[in-house]
Amino acid sequence: MTLEAIQYLRGRLHILNQLLLPHETCYEEIDTVQQGWQAIRDMKVRGAPAIAIVGCLSLVTELQQSNEEDKDAVVTFILDSLKYLVSARPTAVNIAKAAAELSALVRRETQKAESTAATIKESVITHIVSMLEKDIADNKNIGDCGARHILSRINKEKATILTHCNTGSLATAGYGTALGVIRSLHAMGRLEHVFCTETRPYNQGARLTAFELVYEKIPATLIADSMASIAMKEKAVVVGADRVVLNGDTANKVGTYQLAVSAKYHNIPFYVAAPCTSCDLSLENGEQIVIEERPHQELTDINGIRIAAPGIHVWNPAFDVTPHELITGGIITELGVFSPSELQDAVIRG
Amino acid sequence: MTLEAIQYLRGRLHILNQLLLPHETCYEEIDTVQQGWQAIRDMKVRGAPAIAIVGCLSLVTELQQSNEEDKDAVVTFILDSLKYLVSARPTAVNIAKAAAELSALVRRETQKAESTAATIKESVITHIVSMLEKDIADNKNIGDCGARHILSRINKEKATILTHCNTGSLATAGYGTALGVIRSLHAMGRLEHVFCTETRPYNQGARLTAFELVYEKIPATLIADSMASIAMKEKAVVVGADRVVLNGDTANKVGTYQLAVSAKYHNIPFYVAAPCTSCDLSLENGEQIVIEERPHQELTDINGIRIAAPGIHVWNPAFDVTPHELITGGIITELGVFSPSELQDAVIRG
Repeated sequence: MTLEAIQYLRGRLHILNQLLLPHETCYEEIDTVQQGWQAIRDMKVRGAPAIAIVGCLSLVTELQQSNEEDKDAVVTFILDSLKYLVSARPTAVNIAKAAAELSALVRRETQKAESTAATIKESVITHIVSMLEKDIADNKNIGDCGARHILSRINKEKATILTHCNTGSLATAGYGTALGVIRSLHAMGRLEHVFCTETRPYNQGARLTAFELVYEKIPATLIADSMASIAMKEKAVVVGADRVVLNGDTANKVGTYQLAVSAKYHNIPFYVAAPCTSCDLSLENGEQIVIEERPHQELTDINGIRIAAPGIHVWNPAFDVTPHELITGGIITELGVFSPSELQDAVIRG
Repeated sequence: MTLEAIQYLRGRLHILNQLLLPHETCYEEIDTVQQGWQAIRDMKVRGAPAIAIVGCLSLVTELQQSNEEDKDAVVTFILDSLKYLVSARPTAVNIAKAAAELSALVRRETQKAESTAATIKESVITHIVSMLEKDIADNKNIGDCGARHILSRINKEKATILTHCNTGSLATAGYGTALGVIRSLHAMGRLEHVFCTETRPYNQGARLTAFELVYEKIPATLIADSMASIAMKEKAVVVGADRVVLNGDTANKVGTYQLAVSAKYHNIPFYVAAPCTSCDLSLENGEQIVIEERPHQELTDINGIRIAAPGIHVWNPAFDVTPHELITGGIITELGVFSPSELQDAVIRG
């Protein structure tokens, strides 16, 4: 069975606390928007699609418990909650897009003469639950499209993939984006091997991707981020995305840019795998993306123990931007694989 | 005062146990060859020049305690000890070169009719102690040559340098190679800022370089290895070397190759700073360099605590090879700064 990071059943939401992996597999119940915001901020849940889904589902749980019958009060609560949830982390676009869609939905529903507090709640809940299902279906399409595209570009029976950070069941509603491509190749019997980077400073590769790969019995080797270039020969690189903008520039986990530079030098294809919900056509280029800086302790301490020399200054951007010209393989979406220049039309059309 | 990692005074050798840095500054006495070998293997001391010096000084301490008066027994002990010391770690060339030089010296001395156990011991001890002094003098030359060369290539008053691993007082007899260049720039008032990578998996950058930079009040920022490419604009990269071969290919701490690839892409100069003792003209090219693989625990555990998911395979090469064509700044030695193609003549002439 695939690992489930987000369990939503009969109105109750449990999330796997990813801070405790790989040591403990511990699910925590989320039943308020405040708890959803905190879980995202603390990185108990991370990954652009998963952030959106957990944030929105936390709103569902609170709406379901609420006895509020005043329509205006419900609308205000929903709109304020969405605004608040978006503020938890700035770089991933999915939750911002979901919030915008839901806000528009609420405004449309409110206009209807027959609408009540109950009907508005119901329409929001239905929309959010469908997001969960859509994300899994989209990921499966991403996996299959990406796998077929990579296989069409190599002259070998089996592909070896290098990936970064965690983009699997733990980062999405299920299946995964870049890890979905790996999963699909494995299911087809066309996967030779995976190299996963440990992904400093937060070790999502060592803790989470390695956990998922071992769990699924996918042949894989862990390397330090700095070993990627020497491990890169004759491979394809597939990473996820936190935000893909109009020209194809992509924000993803810090270190992605370095992998893209190296893939270019080694003349191997570099792919970004992301659902259309990660595409933000409101921004022209990557320079406009806000990059979150995380606490210094993530880099200087591990499990609460200081590893860096005291007194040293630290820079800890959580993401970097890969310019579109380095995305040489393509952007793998649920609609197909597109070059950065084709993406805009495809997403608008899709 | 500069940090001293190797203290040799009146025949007694103490080394700073670098495994305990930055938490504890603890010196340990080394008084046998076996202890010298173990300190090198366990990485209590690391850095190509420092490995050579500590290994050889451990032989000095044992020779000084010995009452052996049989000439053949002394010669056999010296030659066997040197062979053993070289086996502690395979990639750095300095100790192998020192061992070869000392073995040749011993054979020459043995030929002399008047030589005794005492004269042979004395000549070996004198030679080794002079190595210690020469290494510091060479490093100062490396620092000054490198600083002048970098300043001649930039159009600014002050240089910003990105460096990897630890190449400072802790990696050499004192002053440092790449960190020597940084130290010289700082002394000249021509250093803007240093970015030091944490240098996974062993964190020599976070633990040791950051420690030295704070100690010396040099303005510096710690980054994860994967952040180097985004931190790279308008900088020069200066790293050390464990072995530079005939065509200029260079083995150094894993991650160096990735920095060189990125420097090339960003069109910024990439320098290797190393004494001539790190040059191995017996090897034609980098493919012939033996790369040490270190225990998996270095990557999967930190301070004895597992960070990676159980069951994942691991690849942990300690070094990688940077091809000479990526060393675009030059190779900084105590004799001057040379392009890889000029190196051979310079070293032989020098």
